[in-house]
Amino acid sequence: MTDTRLSMRLDLTSGERIGPGKIALLEAIRSTGSISAAARQLGMSYRRAWLLVEQVNGALRKPAVASAAGGRQGGGAIVTPVGEQVIELYRSIEGIARSSAREEFRAVSKLVRKSRKARSQRTA
Amino acid sequence: MTDTRLSMRLDLTSGERIGPGKIALLEAIRSTGSISAAARQLGMSYRRAWLLVEQVNGALRKPAVASAAGGRQGGGAIVTPVGEQVIELYRSIEGIARSSAREEFRAVSKLVRKSRKARSQRTA
Repeated sequence: MTDTRLSMRLDLTSGERIGPGKIALLEAIRSTGSISAAARQLGMSYRRAWLLVEQVNGALRKPAVASAAGGRQGGGAIVTPVGEQVIELYRSIEGIARSSAREEFRAVSKLVRKSRKARSQRTA
Repeated sequence: MTDTRLSMRLDLTSGERIGPGKIALLEAIRSTGSISAAARQLGMSYRRAWLLVEQVNGALRKPAVASAAGGRQGGGAIVTPVGEQVIELYRSIEGIARSSAREEFRAVSKLVRKSRKARSQRTA
């Protein structure tokens, strides 16, 4: 309906920020079961992914990602219940913002220049 | 009440993004009447401010900032009615998100590690 999308960033008291990149990373870790596989999925270096996980973990009272060391595969990572809550709260704030400010998004879209891509999508 | 703040970014079809930095710049141009004074106020180079203004203008059907060339001061910049609308819509989406997702913000704040600064603010 509206062409404008919203990205949100949560600015925490610790100074850390949780935005779309970190949430996508948590979701990728949840679905792949490892930081390296999640990094590959997102086209990000392992080092970068690891640093983002450290930042998220450091910002929270309890870690969002824990290592699932041991076992036959010898490693892997899991999203903890706290991590699940962070993902869920972020996505729900996003959904609430989108649905509550529908009129405003429409109004912004009217001010925005249409890209060629948007026009072709409309034709299709 | 809640310690977590929200920053929003609007991702436009054109590929441009309008976030807190560009909105603060528009507001500073509005209050100072020039791009260079606005840049100074925000601790940003003139070149950077000019590029951000170009990006915002390029993303919209009509410019958000126009030059107020001529006159005794020989220059200056004004925020156009479209620019005013962009500022207003951005701030209102922000306010709507904040007030509609109050519970979720509180829940996020509970998961977040408290900074020393936040604690001292609470005491004060």
